[in-house]
Amino acid sequence: MTQTASLGRRAAVECVGTGALVAVAVGAGVQATALSRDAGVQLLACSLATVFGLGVLLALFGPISGAHLNPVVTLAAWWHGRREGAGPGAREAAAYIPAQVAGAIGGAVLANAMFAQPLVRWSTHDRSAPHLWLGEAVATAGLVLLAFGLTRTGRAHLAPVAVACYIGAAYWFTSSTSFANPALTIGRAFTDTAPGIAPASVLPFVAAQLVGLVVGVALAAVLFGRAAPAAAPAAAQDAVVPHAEDQPAASGH
Amino acid sequence: MTQTASLGRRAAVECVGTGALVAVAVGAGVQATALSRDAGVQLLACSLATVFGLGVLLALFGPISGAHLNPVVTLAAWWHGRREGAGPGAREAAAYIPAQVAGAIGGAVLANAMFAQPLVRWSTHDRSAPHLWLGEAVATAGLVLLAFGLTRTGRAHLAPVAVACYIGAAYWFTSSTSFANPALTIGRAFTDTAPGIAPASVLPFVAAQLVGLVVGVALAAVLFGRAAPAAAPAAAQDAVVPHAEDQPAASGH
Amino acid sequence: MTQTASLGRRAAVECVGTGALVAVAVGAGVQATALSRDAGVQLLACSLATVFGLGVLLALFGPISGAHLNPVVTLAAWWHGRREGAGPGAREAAAYIPAQVAGAIGGAVLANAMFAQPLVRWSTHDRSAPHLWLGEAVATAGLVLLAFGLTRTGRAHLAPVAVACYIGAAYWFTSSTSFANPALTIGRAFTDTAPGIAPASVLPFVAAQLVGLVVGVALAAVLFGRAAPAAAPAAAQDAVVPHAEDQPAASGH
Amino acid sequence: MTQTASLGRRAAVECVGTGALVAVAVGAGVQATALSRDAGVQLLACSLATVFGLGVLLALFGPISGAHLNPVVTLAAWWHGRREGAGPGAREAAAYIPAQVAGAIGGAVLANAMFAQPLVRWSTHDRSAPHLWLGEAVATAGLVLLAFGLTRTGRAHLAPVAVACYIGAAYWFTSSTSFANPALTIGRAFTDTAPGIAPASVLPFVAAQLVGLVVGVALAAVLFGRAAPAAAPAAAQDAVVPHAEDQPAASGH
Repeated sequence: MTQTASLGRRAAVECVGTGALVAVAVGAGVQATALSRDAGVQLLACSLATVFGLGVLLALFGPISGAHLNPVVTLAAWWHGRREGAGPGAREAAAYIPAQVAGAIGGAVLANAMFAQPLVRWSTHDRSAPHLWLGEAVATAGLVLLAFGLTRTGRAHLAPVAVACYIGAAYWFTSSTSFANPALTIGRAFTDTAPGIAPASVLPFVAAQLVGLVVGVALAAVLFGRAAPAAAPAAAQDAVVPHAEDQPAASGH
Repeated sequence: MTQTASLGRRAAVECVGTGALVAVAVGAGVQATALSRDAGVQLLACSLATVFGLGVLLALFGPISGAHLNPVVTLAAWWHGRREGAGPGAREAAAYIPAQVAGAIGGAVLANAMFAQPLVRWSTHDRSAPHLWLGEAVATAGLVLLAFGLTRTGRAHLAPVAVACYIGAAYWFTSSTSFANPALTIGRAFTDTAPGIAPASVLPFVAAQLVGLVVGVALAAVLFGRAAPAAAPAAAQDAVVPHAEDQPAASGH
Repeated sequence: MTQTASLGRRAAVECVGTGALVAVAVGAGVQATALSRDAGVQLLACSLATVFGLGVLLALFGPISGAHLNPVVTLAAWWHGRREGAGPGAREAAAYIPAQVAGAIGGAVLANAMFAQPLVRWSTHDRSAPHLWLGEAVATAGLVLLAFGLTRTGRAHLAPVAVACYIGAAYWFTSSTSFANPALTIGRAFTDTAPGIAPASVLPFVAAQLVGLVVGVALAAVLFGRAAPAAAPAAAQDAVVPHAEDQPAASGH
Repeated sequence: MTQTASLGRRAAVECVGTGALVAVAVGAGVQATALSRDAGVQLLACSLATVFGLGVLLALFGPISGAHLNPVVTLAAWWHGRREGAGPGAREAAAYIPAQVAGAIGGAVLANAMFAQPLVRWSTHDRSAPHLWLGEAVATAGLVLLAFGLTRTGRAHLAPVAVACYIGAAYWFTSSTSFANPALTIGRAFTDTAPGIAPASVLPFVAAQLVGLVVGVALAAVLFGRAAPAAAPAAAQDAVVPHAEDQPAASGH
């Protein structure tokens, strides 16, 4: 079935999946803020809801579109695929990324509706500070390293659990609570609730995420080595899972 | 063994399983309310207890009855089976749904007894508001999409973990804390404790869940495509897991 | 290796494993009480620590002794084995149960030492009330039903995760916070800290657990049917996992 | 791929992995302390972040270096390998341990930077008391027993989940919150935040961990028996997983 899914359907899956991810992040944030006055309890709730929700989305949509749900992941997969003649091409990437961003905005609007908030109102939550940008770069580098490393070591099937757990940890160990996803960042600008991010803070966050992407790709090359060249025999193909497989480990937040 | 279980035994499993699910939801709700004054901590406890308990019930009872534990899931399985000549027939559905509702009421009574509450007292917890109904519709649509998608992509064996995690997330990202189950909704009317729902709020909740069922079925058709026709060769059968399998992914909350 | 482990070594494993389980329950209880003033947070910590710790113990010691860690589980395995000529015999049970009780007491003493408490002091925590006994009976019946059902449906390999998650839920949905284990109950009488139980409350708790054992065995017969008779052909053996397997699902809390 | 990874690359993986582990422990500790005034909520957050983060690191780096991330684990693997002619040799251990310590310090510095703390400042958090040392010895003995037992019973593939869950439980049931790792202990001296440890407390902690290592190795010999001698036939090799396998279960915190 995965081979027969049209690009349109795969893009629709990326759109719905990213939307669901943003609805989880925003909805849980609003619920947690409404219920608890302890900011630690709030982040516990948000991080656990995201672990559960993201893991489910990756498992459900992975077989159809790869479940990137994140432009950084799509770009990383395209970059690796470009060198090895596998992974999404420029055409796929050009379809996925706008679908992810549109879905993210839709997810924020849906969460606003579910919690009786104005459907669209710009966030006033300023998140501009150098140490937050460092947090975003670290979070994104780790995500890229994880997605690449799982694929390279033949453990792509662990991606739903591993990526969800990674983000659950990164909520806590990074100062920015780990957005690590440009589409999610844009979507969260469309809600004036606790999980929002002011539009003026979006661009620096996305820039930090792109820096993290580059760092993650470089770190992956150092730690996991380069893929075998295309002329490598079948034995090497066994050891190094190529990016052309149906279900890339790359997956998103 | 699954093939030899009589309809009576399968209905008994649906009854006990749904009862256990309601006992978990109500019991954890009473315990959490008694122990913590922070409503965020209370919902954390309820959501984690449900994730653990629901996952166990689906794993334990799936091989016998399919572990629907939820009329919406039974209806969705019947609908898909009707078209493809598989899944539960009208006779099975007519046995499952009353068993689920009876079990749900029994589970609420048992929870009341375990916490020294009156065995039966109507809930006075009003839950009537449009944004809560939207929450129920979204929660149920997501559940139906998940159950269908896992089956269609050959990952039905992940259902116990995936459905439990989904509900754990939906507790937080939906405004209604995701009942998503008509039997559970009816059962929770029988307890005048925090997790209860006033009888007057039950019908709109169930209606919203049925709307979610329709939305979920439609969304699944868009994102996962239609099943191969009955005349399809064996190769298609491999790619598209038929609904006649012993352990449907559909499973409930 | 499992076949070659002597009865003495298996009993030692039951002793150390049950001791570790009690050390987790008591240690986490003392730590949680010391750190938080919110009783909900305390129970969250205890339930999560037990889920993590119990799952690890069952996975680690299952291949050696079956990881009962609980006299109720040993008795249930003996009862079923008696009828089917498999499972632990009277000799094994007579070795396991004292080892479990001795280990449980040792675990409580170790936890007392780790938290600078008197090594042994009787608990003054009264836990005598009919609704708590009902909670214990329900918790134990569920545990027995789970252990039996997983074995009968060929899912014994899920026991470490399923039993740990079950106890994590039962901490919340039962009024007694689910001891469900006579050895653990006795061990917790040896610590005058929050997780303790006054000696006068021990006997009724154990009696309720034994009632739960009987209810669980009966419920399992109704829901999962009786095992195939010894004369059944190999095909039936495939469908019904016999109790003589190396790693019984039965496992304890 | 695991066979071709050079010692330099494996040491780099140990360095980065241990650094990431310390960044998780320190970062989550700083975040939790900043967000919540309830010390129970703080420890819940730290323990869950560590469970998620440690599990991911073990799954990601296990195929390359074995993912020890802990000098105690490296020493235990060397000890067992020395007797059986497998596991890391003295040369590997001499490369791994300094890499782990260097990485741990780097991870603490990175966490300090992400949270806008001074990059290096000695901790003033005194952790000197006999019952804390007992906690460290118990925590480390359990970790060594777990890593050894999983390997001996052929369940090394469960190590990422099992070790992460073990540490999650040990955060709560030991009085010291389970450092159980000399490199982590040294790294946490480099941050004057809540998760830090004063330099004067480091040496006794490391000494207690080494005592725990010895206790764990002895306990493992009692409970799991000795490995089959090298002259044992292939049948024994099947039952007893040798230490020379590519991905040792031993893994760290």
